[in-house]
Amino acid sequence: MILRDKPGFMQLAFAVRGSIVPVIAPQVLGLAAFAALVVWADRHLATFPEIEATPFTVFGIALSLFLGFRNNAAYDRWWEARKLWGGLLADLRSFARETELFLASEADRARALRLALAFMHLHRAMARRLPDDATARTAAGRAGLSADGPLPRPCAALDSIATLLANARRDGTLDGYGARALAERLASITLGQAGAERIARTPLPYVYSLLIYRTTYLYCLLLPLALVGPAGWLAPLFVGIVAYVFLGLAEVTEDLAHPFGNTPNALPLDAICRTAEISLAPHLGEEPPQPLAPVDYYLS
Amino acid sequence: MILRDKPGFMQLAFAVRGSIVPVIAPQVLGLAAFAALVVWADRHLATFPEIEATPFTVFGIALSLFLGFRNNAAYDRWWEARKLWGGLLADLRSFARETELFLASEADRARALRLALAFMHLHRAMARRLPDDATARTAAGRAGLSADGPLPRPCAALDSIATLLANARRDGTLDGYGARALAERLASITLGQAGAERIARTPLPYVYSLLIYRTTYLYCLLLPLALVGPAGWLAPLFVGIVAYVFLGLAEVTEDLAHPFGNTPNALPLDAICRTAEISLAPHLGEEPPQPLAPVDYYLS
Amino acid sequence: MILRDKPGFMQLAFAVRGSIVPVIAPQVLGLAAFAALVVWADRHLATFPEIEATPFTVFGIALSLFLGFRNNAAYDRWWEARKLWGGLLADLRSFARETELFLASEADRARALRLALAFMHLHRAMARRLPDDATARTAAGRAGLSADGPLPRPCAALDSIATLLANARRDGTLDGYGARALAERLASITLGQAGAERIARTPLPYVYSLLIYRTTYLYCLLLPLALVGPAGWLAPLFVGIVAYVFLGLAEVTEDLAHPFGNTPNALPLDAICRTAEISLAPHLGEEPPQPLAPVDYYLS
Amino acid sequence: MILRDKPGFMQLAFAVRGSIVPVIAPQVLGLAAFAALVVWADRHLATFPEIEATPFTVFGIALSLFLGFRNNAAYDRWWEARKLWGGLLADLRSFARETELFLASEADRARALRLALAFMHLHRAMARRLPDDATARTAAGRAGLSADGPLPRPCAALDSIATLLANARRDGTLDGYGARALAERLASITLGQAGAERIARTPLPYVYSLLIYRTTYLYCLLLPLALVGPAGWLAPLFVGIVAYVFLGLAEVTEDLAHPFGNTPNALPLDAICRTAEISLAPHLGEEPPQPLAPVDYYLS
Amino acid sequence: MILRDKPGFMQLAFAVRGSIVPVIAPQVLGLAAFAALVVWADRHLATFPEIEATPFTVFGIALSLFLGFRNNAAYDRWWEARKLWGGLLADLRSFARETELFLASEADRARALRLALAFMHLHRAMARRLPDDATARTAAGRAGLSADGPLPRPCAALDSIATLLANARRDGTLDGYGARALAERLASITLGQAGAERIARTPLPYVYSLLIYRTTYLYCLLLPLALVGPAGWLAPLFVGIVAYVFLGLAEVTEDLAHPFGNTPNALPLDAICRTAEISLAPHLGEEPPQPLAPVDYYLS
Repeated sequence: MILRDKPGFMQLAFAVRGSIVPVIAPQVLGLAAFAALVVWADRHLATFPEIEATPFTVFGIALSLFLGFRNNAAYDRWWEARKLWGGLLADLRSFARETELFLASEADRARALRLALAFMHLHRAMARRLPDDATARTAAGRAGLSADGPLPRPCAALDSIATLLANARRDGTLDGYGARALAERLASITLGQAGAERIARTPLPYVYSLLIYRTTYLYCLLLPLALVGPAGWLAPLFVGIVAYVFLGLAEVTEDLAHPFGNTPNALPLDAICRTAEISLAPHLGEEPPQPLAPVDYYLS
Repeated sequence: MILRDKPGFMQLAFAVRGSIVPVIAPQVLGLAAFAALVVWADRHLATFPEIEATPFTVFGIALSLFLGFRNNAAYDRWWEARKLWGGLLADLRSFARETELFLASEADRARALRLALAFMHLHRAMARRLPDDATARTAAGRAGLSADGPLPRPCAALDSIATLLANARRDGTLDGYGARALAERLASITLGQAGAERIARTPLPYVYSLLIYRTTYLYCLLLPLALVGPAGWLAPLFVGIVAYVFLGLAEVTEDLAHPFGNTPNALPLDAICRTAEISLAPHLGEEPPQPLAPVDYYLS
Repeated sequence: MILRDKPGFMQLAFAVRGSIVPVIAPQVLGLAAFAALVVWADRHLATFPEIEATPFTVFGIALSLFLGFRNNAAYDRWWEARKLWGGLLADLRSFARETELFLASEADRARALRLALAFMHLHRAMARRLPDDATARTAAGRAGLSADGPLPRPCAALDSIATLLANARRDGTLDGYGARALAERLASITLGQAGAERIARTPLPYVYSLLIYRTTYLYCLLLPLALVGPAGWLAPLFVGIVAYVFLGLAEVTEDLAHPFGNTPNALPLDAICRTAEISLAPHLGEEPPQPLAPVDYYLS
Repeated sequence: MILRDKPGFMQLAFAVRGSIVPVIAPQVLGLAAFAALVVWADRHLATFPEIEATPFTVFGIALSLFLGFRNNAAYDRWWEARKLWGGLLADLRSFARETELFLASEADRARALRLALAFMHLHRAMARRLPDDATARTAAGRAGLSADGPLPRPCAALDSIATLLANARRDGTLDGYGARALAERLASITLGQAGAERIARTPLPYVYSLLIYRTTYLYCLLLPLALVGPAGWLAPLFVGIVAYVFLGLAEVTEDLAHPFGNTPNALPLDAICRTAEISLAPHLGEEPPQPLAPVDYYLS
Repeated sequence: MILRDKPGFMQLAFAVRGSIVPVIAPQVLGLAAFAALVVWADRHLATFPEIEATPFTVFGIALSLFLGFRNNAAYDRWWEARKLWGGLLADLRSFARETELFLASEADRARALRLALAFMHLHRAMARRLPDDATARTAAGRAGLSADGPLPRPCAALDSIATLLANARRDGTLDGYGARALAERLASITLGQAGAERIARTPLPYVYSLLIYRTTYLYCLLLPLALVGPAGWLAPLFVGIVAYVFLGLAEVTEDLAHPFGNTPNALPLDAICRTAEISLAPHLGEEPPQPLAPVDYYLS
């Protein structure tokens, strides 16, 4: 995630970090060059039939609406993903307090919290598709999950918590009230995990991407025909601006629709996991680590 | 569900798998041909009165807005359906952990989990309208539900879980805390089931389909009258593009509004059921099966 | 509710069942006739001042947006109503399972389920404003609610369940866990009932209807002035189409905003009540009745 | 709240009750008069420069979108307020049933219900800013809250219920199950109260009002410049219509954004409180009062 | 938060308090001056090529839609933040009532409530980035949290409540029912806190700000080219108005997207904390303080 203040004058003109410009520059320049070619051909080869701009108005507004819809859906995915991870953080904090209240054995408490932290890291590694994440492996090891071979599945950490609770129940160090309270907390974590999995594994329908990119390119390729008459050599500039706005939005949308990726706009899962460690440290009797700070405006 | 990366240049130009083009090609070509006919008639038979493009602007924007509304509603249905199935998956995982915590008898636990898996498959078979699905029949059989005749209703699997719990309660192997916890889990599954049934059985109001398809065809049939003058022989191209955009969106919408169908954009219920089996396998002491993989980009 | 497949070619051209055309035909024809009158007057009496179409563009787009807003709000009401009834169905199923788990007396269980079914029918009769619905009266009678005079209020059925539970509690056939579980279920039903009442008793603000219908008519009455010049005798056709789109959407909206009515687009409350009876039949040891089937595409 | 059927032909033409026309007539007429002045000046003093209508298209559409956004936000406030009050009604009904199930002392039960009714009336009086509402005072008095001085705060009624429950708990007439059930109900009422307070005390950001009204007036004041050429003496009519649509919507929005006011579109809090009294009467062994009926289409 | 009535005529013309005008005046005047320069250059240096206004229509509508989207997202953040703080207020009131019901020791009750109030103030100080807020320090001190060094984290206050409850549980002054009830309340507060943290720490994606401000400036800088012909010396006025509308909305959006800031549109956290103190005073046996009143229409 990029963390910068409201863009000032200089940033507006020159900021590259966090901007979508570097990604779409080739396409924008290509389309502008194509427009220039059309103008040149119109002047030197043969005059194109002049096309009124009105059909392009409808086309452009329809395209804006569809891009707007897809942008909305992508932003909703991004924000829902953030809500789910925020909910997991709250669940971990509540879990720590509820173990204090309901779990009699201090060793059980510590193990349960370490398993919860391991879950967070394993969940993050799976969401980010890091099959051999070192931090997750360490967290899993500290919680007593198998340290060799592939990383355990996040479910394995939660299953271990359930087994721990079942054993405590049988030992009499967890009464019925506590069993219900902690089982509900576990279920809430499970729900948050399933929600994040849903977003990670079910992309926006592919057919939208195809429809919208194809329509955008068609629009930008046909636009010179409408502009060559009224705008002349300014046509490439206008085509470039239109391409910048539409392709820029399409690209941002593509980014936000994958909130667990490694793009500049992806969610700061590392920082959230760190916050969880900070929040649970007092309950484990440990010194809390430092919060993660953005590097070059980027919080990972 | 189609699983492909962001379309690259070649896909944009040529991808057919996951595209809506094959479905709407006949209509698009038909409307373009009609436009060509209008141009030909205008040139060789009798000149049509020239109609200003402005009324078409309003008409086109109104149509875009209504298509946008219907698209929104369809996408919401699709995404809510995915949420409900994701919630069912979470419920099954929590159910497995809670049986470990609250159900004393191991045999009861195993039977309860097998019934839960049978529910998932029966629910899937009903949503997909597969009255004799072999996988669902096997799952029902393993859970001890009647193996002959028509498939049992999904409710039957949940009713059997309730009976199992009531017997355990009477036997004293399930205490009051556990009865409440497991009954709440069952109610949560019931709610998810009812939600998915609602989407499957209550389509978008038919009157919208009629209104929108009629309006779209009217628009595409009248458009040549506005384009014959300014665009000439390019009119069929423009009409084709407009038809592609509007009919394409209408068709995608129709697909997404039925998220449990067998279309390329339908939800991957098979894969979700498989994930449930993988998640419950450790609780049943079984080897988890392999996750389903997409075939030709398609996850069933 | 109309249940038809995606409209094919013939339906698009001729379908009347489920279409809004019969309702708005008089207004549409009237407005087209008025447009024809304007053209005739312009040709034979005195030429009207030509008005540019641009103001109509803004007017038309603003009108589309406001119609779109109202349509959204109406569809949300319709879909929320369906959700609430779906939730009631889920609550009834869970109630049946929870009585099995928590209510010791079989007679109490049967009476509680019959009261729940009576509630559904009384609730339906109130929503549909059927003060003397025979099915509801029968259901109330079977549950032991007063059979004479006006139909009991839906609340009376739920109050009777509460009294039944309180008596069971006092008799010792319902323990504390069960009392909480069943009271929560009752509260969930109560919430669903209040939600449906809210939709039934609080229509969309009347001021919107007035504003939107007045604006739509103003638009259709002024439109001929803008079209008489450029479109000539085609003006009535265009006015008719515009009136069809705008009045059609306004009328559909009016329908969906009253989801408990008797219009073709109203919710199939009869069918939902029947599904509840089917779901509860096994718990009552009865043969489940047949599900309701659509008649002439209409599910009541 | 205005309760009228779908407007028929006569109402469309003449309905004043529930219409926004009387409120905005002065501004609409004023703006139309200004437009007439511009036309007169253009004809008799000096010709204004002709301005193309296109900039007004963008301006008008942008304004429509912003008005649409604010209208959406206002309607959401109105509908959320209605949901919260509907939720309170459901909570009161559930509270009555749960006291029957869990509170052993009949006197406590009656007092608790009277306190709940007093809460509703005090909450209504606070939302409507009626510092000396007679009905609320009576209800508070019947519940044993201080009858003199300023009205008690709604919180005082809920605090008294909590104290009543704490005393019952200490006396042994309320067990742990009941304490949890009734405390959860109280918390649910508290949440509904806080939600309604939020809407009452946090208006839509003032800056929106300023921005939108200023923009609307700017638009209506500049519009004559664009219409004076093409529309001539019809310009005042067009300006009047535009002002009617935009100011009408802005005014309705202003109304709906304050759902607890005394405007025709405000929520019928009196009627909801009466419904609560009707619902609780059987539990208090009283004759239910009559429901409130609309007076001149208006339900208070 | 600015608290003013619906703007009247004088306010519309002159209100500055709560208006966005002072913030954006420099940019608006700068852009208008640039437009004047373009007109002057066009008249005295060399005639610019005339550009049709149509491309600007599409551009302007696309820009309106994107601004509208961002405005929606920002308003949702603002309103969700308000909901979360309203929920915290409700949680505190319920917490007070539940301690009365479930916590036997009066000293524990008082300490728990003081800790809850300290949490509110610490949470507010963190959200507003006031690392040394005097009120928060006092509240923390009164609750027995460390009075020296940096302010304690809000989590510390909640952790202390959990420890207090665990001790009471061990002492036998809190039974299982109460432990569950109060743990759930604590979890609800934790969830509200995490939600507010999410909004405070995860701004709207920076890439949107960049894209929208860049597009807005591009639009306003190119607009004179389209207006210089038809509008002449009125062009600067039009450009100024367009800049006022678009930049004004962008700026308001920027404000609302940071609901915990110190801008005029930020949420009144001080007032909400004061309301919490008023609500809890009777439970602490204290005289409630006065509610905060707006100063110069501003409620902090």
